[in-house]
Amino acid sequence: MKVTLKTVLTLATLFFISVCGADDSSWRKLSLNNTVLLTLPHGQVVIELAPQFSPKNAAQFSKLTQQGFYDGTKFYRVIDGFVAQAGPKDGSKKDKSVPLLAMESEWQTDSKWTYTPVQQHDLFAPQTGFKQGFALAYQAGENDSLGTAWLTHCPGTIAMARNNAADSASSHFYFVIGQAPRYLDRIMTIFGRVVYGMQHIQAIQRTAVIDGDDAVKPRHFTKIVSMQLMSDVAKAEQIHLEVENTESTAFAERLVQRRTRDSAFFYKKPPPVLDVCQIPIRSRLIK
Amino acid sequence: MKVTLKTVLTLATLFFISVCGADDSSWRKLSLNNTVLLTLPHGQVVIELAPQFSPKNAAQFSKLTQQGFYDGTKFYRVIDGFVAQAGPKDGSKKDKSVPLLAMESEWQTDSKWTYTPVQQHDLFAPQTGFKQGFALAYQAGENDSLGTAWLTHCPGTIAMARNNAADSASSHFYFVIGQAPRYLDRIMTIFGRVVYGMQHIQAIQRTAVIDGDDAVKPRHFTKIVSMQLMSDVAKAEQIHLEVENTESTAFAERLVQRRTRDSAFFYKKPPPVLDVCQIPIRSRLIK
Repeated sequence: MKVTLKTVLTLATLFFISVCGADDSSWRKLSLNNTVLLTLPHGQVVIELAPQFSPKNAAQFSKLTQQGFYDGTKFYRVIDGFVAQAGPKDGSKKDKSVPLLAMESEWQTDSKWTYTPVQQHDLFAPQTGFKQGFALAYQAGENDSLGTAWLTHCPGTIAMARNNAADSASSHFYFVIGQAPRYLDRIMTIFGRVVYGMQHIQAIQRTAVIDGDDAVKPRHFTKIVSMQLMSDVAKAEQIHLEVENTESTAFAERLVQRRTRDSAFFYKKPPPVLDVCQIPIRSRLIK
Repeated sequence: MKVTLKTVLTLATLFFISVCGADDSSWRKLSLNNTVLLTLPHGQVVIELAPQFSPKNAAQFSKLTQQGFYDGTKFYRVIDGFVAQAGPKDGSKKDKSVPLLAMESEWQTDSKWTYTPVQQHDLFAPQTGFKQGFALAYQAGENDSLGTAWLTHCPGTIAMARNNAADSASSHFYFVIGQAPRYLDRIMTIFGRVVYGMQHIQAIQRTAVIDGDDAVKPRHFTKIVSMQLMSDVAKAEQIHLEVENTESTAFAERLVQRRTRDSAFFYKKPPPVLDVCQIPIRSRLIK
């Protein structure tokens, strides 16, 4: 039974690889123009942007970052297990100076579009998977040639905050710091993800407290020391990273292993399913 | 369509309430004998134990806590997005002094057993829900009278660590600090959950680093200042808490609201599904 299941999954993976096109390099080098260095008082964080999925939102965030717009702003809405949100003072001149953005939360796919499949019948979507390191969901169209795909709210994703109107985001953003709030998928624009230093995002001062606890004074809110495009950082201070290539054969094999759980530790095997938000995409530092 | 769905869900909830038995008190006071105060160098954390589900594991943890066993021990295996694990030095006299525990990861249910249902066809289980504040999964038996239920690995759960053998846990434990590793359900003994101060668990020093990064020296590992049963804590220092009563009508209504997302913020409604690990059970401080 165990062997049969494994064989089926291996064959399925090989099928996916042949369908979706495998890439032999297990690691992908991040471009300095597409990564952001967030310096917090307690540590450094690196974000990979996703202009291939959310071009206008990623571009605006990148531009604001290069202008030093976020330096000195605070994480003013931080709810444990949910999100850490930052931006300029609501309604301030600085806040209002930024143009509004149209929603970029999903996109149409055609018959040539490919991704690395992870799971069918996910609770929130017919299919989940990865593309270029980003977790996503996919819904086939009626004749399978025109489908819809969207990035998913996994821990470590960064997305634009907004008001009630769909196209009301500007500069405020949030990191997901808890169990994936997948109900926000398709109605918020995710434009990047943390690839280094997620523990420092987790250590941001919470601003929400439980009933009966002392309120947190705004002067204790975590401040952004600086937010810089990595290519603008002094050479000696740059952080160079590679991340797992989610289009590689090695990654497809890792998915199979993660699903089958062959280690002796699993004296009883879990169901052979994968939560797309519970698959770490590894990073490594390079010189 | 929206109204119809809401009506259906409300009716379903009322049905659940009548089937499962509702309780009119929205909050449940935690017993000082059943809560643990974990003092870390950077903050205080309160754990509610679950002896009703894992009696022997909870009792051993409670007994060790009362002996001061954990005071001064370290979080020696902390992986961001996964777990923070602590215990005495592996193989030390202290480590070996503790009796091994039998697995208590699931239990049989009979026809009288009730719970607050949350979601059918969850990715990892036929059913999820809550009982007495704890997230769980349920699988009906063949004739529905004899089923199986188990606590789920949501963020903030505390469980016993073990070696490869099922019944090899003793004193080492871990907190879940990332996306629910549900593949550990049914093969690890969960015996409690964090009800206060989860942000301090999230701020524990990670011990695992990515390739190319500097190793973390053991002297920087987070130390447990003290672990005490709340009833043993000096009166003035005790933390008194209430948590939402997951058997109450108010909680059932909150589940309906969370599923239907009626707020204007949801300009497009998400699928009417709930991830049992993405439903915060609120706590509040009482005098």
